[in-house]
Formats: sequence, structure tokens, C-alpha cells
Amino acid sequence: MVRLEVIFLGTSSATPTRSRGLPSIVIRRNGEFFMLDCGEGAQRQLFRVGSGLNREAVILITHLHGDHVTGLLGLLQTMSLAQRTREVTIVAPSALSRWLKTTAEILHIGLTFQVRFNPSRAGTVYRGRDYRIRAARAVHSVEAYSYLLEEFERPGVFHPERAKALGIPEGRLWARLQHGRKVTLNGRTVNPREVTDPPRPGRRVGYSGDTRPSKSLTRFFSHCDLLVFDSTFSSKDEEKALERKHSTAREAALLAKEARVRQLVLTHFSARYRNVGRLLREARSVFPNTIAARDGLKLEVPYQTS
Amino acid sequence: MVRLEVIFLGTSSATPTRSRGLPSIVIRRNGEFFMLDCGEGAQRQLFRVGSGLNREAVILITHLHGDHVTGLLGLLQTMSLAQRTREVTIVAPSALSRWLKTTAEILHIGLTFQVRFNPSRAGTVYRGRDYRIRAARAVHSVEAYSYLLEEFERPGVFHPERAKALGIPEGRLWARLQHGRKVTLNGRTVNPREVTDPPRPGRRVGYSGDTRPSKSLTRFFSHCDLLVFDSTFSSKDEEKALERKHSTAREAALLAKEARVRQLVLTHFSARYRNVGRLLREARSVFPNTIAARDGLKLEVPYQTS
Repeated sequence: MVRLEVIFLGTSSATPTRSRGLPSIVIRRNGEFFMLDCGEGAQRQLFRVGSGLNREAVILITHLHGDHVTGLLGLLQTMSLAQRTREVTIVAPSALSRWLKTTAEILHIGLTFQVRFNPSRAGTVYRGRDYRIRAARAVHSVEAYSYLLEEFERPGVFHPERAKALGIPEGRLWARLQHGRKVTLNGRTVNPREVTDPPRPGRRVGYSGDTRPSKSLTRFFSHCDLLVFDSTFSSKDEEKALERKHSTAREAALLAKEARVRQLVLTHFSARYRNVGRLLREARSVFPNTIAARDGLKLEVPYQTS
Repeated sequence: MVRLEVIFLGTSSATPTRSRGLPSIVIRRNGEFFMLDCGEGAQRQLFRVGSGLNREAVILITHLHGDHVTGLLGLLQTMSLAQRTREVTIVAPSALSRWLKTTAEILHIGLTFQVRFNPSRAGTVYRGRDYRIRAARAVHSVEAYSYLLEEFERPGVFHPERAKALGIPEGRLWARLQHGRKVTLNGRTVNPREVTDPPRPGRRVGYSGDTRPSKSLTRFFSHCDLLVFDSTFSSKDEEKALERKHSTAREAALLAKEARVRQLVLTHFSARYRNVGRLLREARSVFPNTIAARDGLKLEVPYQTS
């Protein structure tokens, strides 16, 4: 079992408030560290939630607005002061690379590690041993992307007693069957499904970044185990959501329902709402399995058991 | 009486800690707002200390190291989202202007107000009605400046009874005397010192930024009412202070003593010290009127009464 945890570092939009920092989310999986957006203050929030920096790290930026990006400078500098040597991968719209270069030169930031830069584009933007991260175009005022971490399907549980009953000797042939391949023994072909349970689906965690809802995002986030979606506004400020290319909490819920996600998390709240209870109610009336993010919230993403 | 207050937003160096943010100090005087350095998180700290943004604002940057500068982006953006229209003055080494320009373009930051940019240089870098701000070269690994806010001398208290005794009629002639100018009445010249107390000195608040101590900074900070000085290291890490071009707390105290300042405030503590009590003791053994800054500390700077 691989632990998959989502941690909210900052849950405000545009400006921080007393209780909410600028956008940043961390996904931890198997000692790997994925950061989704990196608003000002993200590095300090990392300390607060007790997360280290010195592991495999992939930083994914949804779009080039200051409040989603500027924390990157301090984070990279602190990694260097901690003498990090492992490469960091950054996935972001391509101009970010130019900004980092100019900034490093003018602000005298010298890194102790390599940065691998993958420009964002629709499709797979990062690939791990047993998962991949895909991007889709979002609908915002500037070039913007949504991201999806997708675990590969795992082979079903192998039942040794069934293999024994079929007369298959322990060893190489069992391993083939466990990896989902057929085996031929004494002229008879054994299908892996005869000795294993059906494959177990991987988990899917989605993050919209700043966006209007859209049909293609609904497809992109289809059947997510956890979907974190732009919920900047309440329905009573719907025209602001339209104008500024954000979503209301209710729109996030409508998309979650149509995409048949398991759980929806609202985030990126406008600083105008001191209390997001109203936004949460608006979303829950459409999609009950909704929660509102807050800074420091940690959510475990369980495997689907059904 | 003009209130002069110094507020510490961030008191760490290089990396933030749980309790200390990156360097930034605010001086408030008569509705004017001066910010000295602007490390990541400064805008959020401003909320915490209850300081508004929409007033005359001068931001002074000591040098172009990321930890002293990156908070500027979020601060300027938040000012714009609050629809600020008053000009902001930035005093900083000249390359900062290029960085802000590139950043505003790539990160789509549009400002609602003018930025007046004064490149740092030794001498007066900003002038108000009754004060000025001067800069001096500091001794650091990159081009760096120390700053000094200096109130002009105020005229001494005027004594109406003395003017009356000399037969000077109330009105225009009193005003001349109050402003320190001579008056001639019936062929006799009255010197303002005959009817007023001696001029009262203005206050002086100094900030070193990152620096080694030096003879010229000792002169620059001579007789400061409040001096905030680089105290990155304890004496036991003196070689690190030398190598990285910072000061120890003890060196800050030696300079304060020689410069005959009234009060010394230590700041910019290395994250290696969980507790700065040792640094404070080292400084006090040389210069007793020393305190250690902490995030959120507010200090009122009184007029000299002697």
C-alpha cells in the first residue's frame, strides 16, 4: 500500500489573509514530493506542516500569475542553503524558465542542484515508475493548466492456492502470472485472471488551478479520487467569477458531480469571504462529498475498495 | 510631537524559521510609511501588525539578495488589488528596476500606481518636509547600502512672555522669531535665541542591512537614537561572519558603543540559533542598552530630553 497525502499550504487567492496564505498544495507519495503552485510563503508553510525538502521533488505551476509563483524563489534558495544536490523538476508555462534565469542573475541566487524544466503542455508532463502526471489546458485570463496525478493500475491480488490447484509450480511461472501474463504448462494455457483478482485501479488526484469550469476539464478530471478545484467566489458573486475567469463553489460542485469524482475540495477563496461556510453550503447542495480547504489541512487519499 | 515607530516584520536571515520571517522593517512617522528591505512574507506580516498600505510609502532595499527582496512582488500586487493610486518610491541598487520590469511582464503584474525609482548611492536618497534619508555603502558580498532616517532639527520652544517683555508685538514678528529668524524693532535687533529655547535635535534611526562593521559606518551611524544592526552570528561563529560578510552581535555592540548610539537592536539572526539569548548577552557585555528584535516587535523612538 502506497500512502498518498495531499497537504494544503495556502488556500487564499490573489492576496493572503490572516488565516490563509497564497496558493500552494503539496502531494506526498512514497517519499516523493509534488508541489502544485508555489505562492509567497510556501517554504515557511512547509516547515509548519513538518515536511522536509530533501527528497524527489516536482514543482508544477498552473500559470504565471505572481500569487501562484513567487514563493518559488525562496524555496529554491532555501533548498540550496540546505545543500540540496538532487535535481528538482519544474513543470510550468515556458516563460517561467526565462524569469528564473533573469531573477537568479539579478538577485544573485546560486543553486546547488540542477533544475530540469518541462514546459507545460496538454498531455503527460512527468512520468514516475508507477504513476504519471498529465496536464490539460484550463480556461483563465492567461495560459493556464490543470494537473492530474494518476497512479497506474496495479495487478490484482495473486492467490497461490489457486495456482497450486492448477498444478503450476511455484517460481518463475507464478511471477509471470502475478505480472498479468499468460502461462502455458503441459499444453494448457492458464490466464492470469484464473489465479488473481481483477486489477486494482490506481488513484487520481486532480488540481484545477485558476479556471472557469469547462467540458474538457470535466472529462480530464473524470472519476478523480480527490479533486481540488478553483472556488474563488460564492454564487452571489457569479458575475465576478465570469469576468475574472474563476469558478464559483457551486460551479466546482457541478463539475465534480458530472465528472463523478469521489471527493471535492474547495480552495482559492477570495479574501472578501471571512468565512467560507456559505461557499461550502452552496457546493454541498449540489455535491455532498465536498470539503473546504484550510491552510495546514492534510488529507489521505485511500484506495477505492468497491 | 511626531510619533516615530519602528516595527519588525521579519528578523531572520537567509531562511525563515518557525518564529522568524525574512528581513523587513517598517518605520511609521506622521502617516508616512518606510519599509526597509522586503523579504518574502512581508505583506502578510503587515496585516498581522495592523499596518495599512495606502499611505505615503517609501521602500528601501539594502542589497539584491533574494531574501531581502522577493516580498516586494506580492506587496506591490496587493497594493494594486487594493486600487492604490498614490505613487510608491523605491530606493534600491539599480538592477532592481530591471528585475521588476521583467517580472511584471512575465508574471502579468499590472500596477495601479506609479513607481518612482531612486537608485541607491551614498548620500541623500529621499527627502521629506522635515526629514531626509541618507545612504552609505555597506560592506557585503554584493553592492549593499545602509540607511539612516534623519529628522531635521526643530526650532526651540518659543516663550511669549519673553517676547512681550522685550516689547515685541504679537503677530508677524513673533512668527519670524519662532522660525529662528532675527527681528529688528525700533532700531534694536532681537536674536531668536533671546525668546526661544535652543533648537531641539531631530531623531535618527539607522539600519545597517547585511554588512561587516566598518569605520565609515561607525561615523554614518554616529549618535543614532535607534540603530538596527546585522547580528547574524554569535562570537563563537566569528569566522563565518568574516567569510560571509556579516557581523556578530558583539561587533554590532562595539560599533554602537563607538558611534555613541542610544539604543541598539540586534536582528538578522542566523537560523542556526534557536534562541538568541547568547547573542544578546554577548552584545550587552559591550553595550548594555541592547535588545534583540523579534517578529512583530514595535519600538517607539522618543525625543532626546537631555
